[in-house]
Amino acid sequence: MVELLRTPGPPIYIQIREALRAEITGGRLKRGEQLPSENKLAARFNVSRMTIRESTEDLVSEGVLYRRHGVGTFVAHPHLQRDHTKLTSFFDEAEDEGVAVQVKLLGLKVIPATPKVAEALDIPAGGHVIRVKTLCYVDGVPITVHDAHMPYGLFAGLVNENLEVQHLWRLFEKAGYRVKRAVQKLEAREASKDVASLMEVKEGAPVLFKERTVYADDGTPVEFTYCYNRGDIYSLTVALER
Amino acid sequence: MVELLRTPGPPIYIQIREALRAEITGGRLKRGEQLPSENKLAARFNVSRMTIRESTEDLVSEGVLYRRHGVGTFVAHPHLQRDHTKLTSFFDEAEDEGVAVQVKLLGLKVIPATPKVAEALDIPAGGHVIRVKTLCYVDGVPITVHDAHMPYGLFAGLVNENLEVQHLWRLFEKAGYRVKRAVQKLEAREASKDVASLMEVKEGAPVLFKERTVYADDGTPVEFTYCYNRGDIYSLTVALER
Repeated sequence: MVELLRTPGPPIYIQIREALRAEITGGRLKRGEQLPSENKLAARFNVSRMTIRESTEDLVSEGVLYRRHGVGTFVAHPHLQRDHTKLTSFFDEAEDEGVAVQVKLLGLKVIPATPKVAEALDIPAGGHVIRVKTLCYVDGVPITVHDAHMPYGLFAGLVNENLEVQHLWRLFEKAGYRVKRAVQKLEAREASKDVASLMEVKEGAPVLFKERTVYADDGTPVEFTYCYNRGDIYSLTVALER
Repeated sequence: MVELLRTPGPPIYIQIREALRAEITGGRLKRGEQLPSENKLAARFNVSRMTIRESTEDLVSEGVLYRRHGVGTFVAHPHLQRDHTKLTSFFDEAEDEGVAVQVKLLGLKVIPATPKVAEALDIPAGGHVIRVKTLCYVDGVPITVHDAHMPYGLFAGLVNENLEVQHLWRLFEKAGYRVKRAVQKLEAREASKDVASLMEVKEGAPVLFKERTVYADDGTPVEFTYCYNRGDIYSLTVALER
């Protein structure tokens, strides 16, 4: 049992919150490790389960802990924080930060565009697109599935390139299209069976989903991509001005 | 059983995809309604379950359908799309779009800041903040929980205001701080029990989580907020330039 200050001073729940935080930063509780049950923590600190709940709630909000429905509370992994204040490619940003990015090609097909993809890429419905699926690893951890679509008419040569070592945007540039602007729609979704197995998470786990249209200098849409990012280790920052 | 074109023309899975899309846009399949099982659809279209899977996969990517792990596939609700290209308040944006926003005050307390909140607001650790929790309804649907923290030293008067009818940013302005800039961190998370019950979704459902620091003209941090947005009906758009 842990002795807490019961005289004037920080409220008990704050003392417990900070004791737990210290165990995490000190490494006694490891990243990804499950926290003892609320009952066990309540016994250890000699308080009610409600107080433990209050203590951990703040740490969950902060992202230090996370809860898995029906499983328990875990120490969070540090998130890969991507900066979306400016448009950069995953590659360039990772290079700048000294993070090792590895790309695995999952598939490359030339297919008729869905109505949605055709509209985004401003090609006729059913027009051909190159569909490239990749899995992106950061420091060895699978973090993002990209399902990219490019107009076949513009980038037929792509099908002969090694897409595991060359970034798409550099290949667009070779073809005369410099990436200038992107519009991204963001949602929270559940991981499908396929995405979950690629990312090594449970089916239904939270995924930060992005739908991205990329435009070249001259306004030509060059890429339409569905991105699935692992919710437990990926976050994204945007700055907004009024 | 539905007759499909088996002669040259669009592949079968595309014909089925578009047949399903037509049933949705035509209203035969309603928003929120569960799709018949893959077996039933396979029998109906006289194809394999794999083909049905392929047909629905595209519609899931597009956001026309969504899957709930262990439950089934549903017709998606239209998403409330927020534009985060510029900084606007929920209120102002909704007003512009003619959407009815209603705010319910869940709690208002003056509490010592957590270390994280104190750092974001640039006040001493344990310094006092006003914590305001609200639930935001759009057209009667609960969509966002805001858990906002403001420096008590700057905005002590807030505790006497009616926060259900006045937007925080307008009250900041009354106190001499005009909102100018915000930095937002975005993640996908599972809905906690509390958040789920407020938003009328299942515990563990996907939530688009935002951590937002808001700055005034002169650079003073005026607000630090955790926002929980319903994943199934909320999406957010950002535009990025290189």
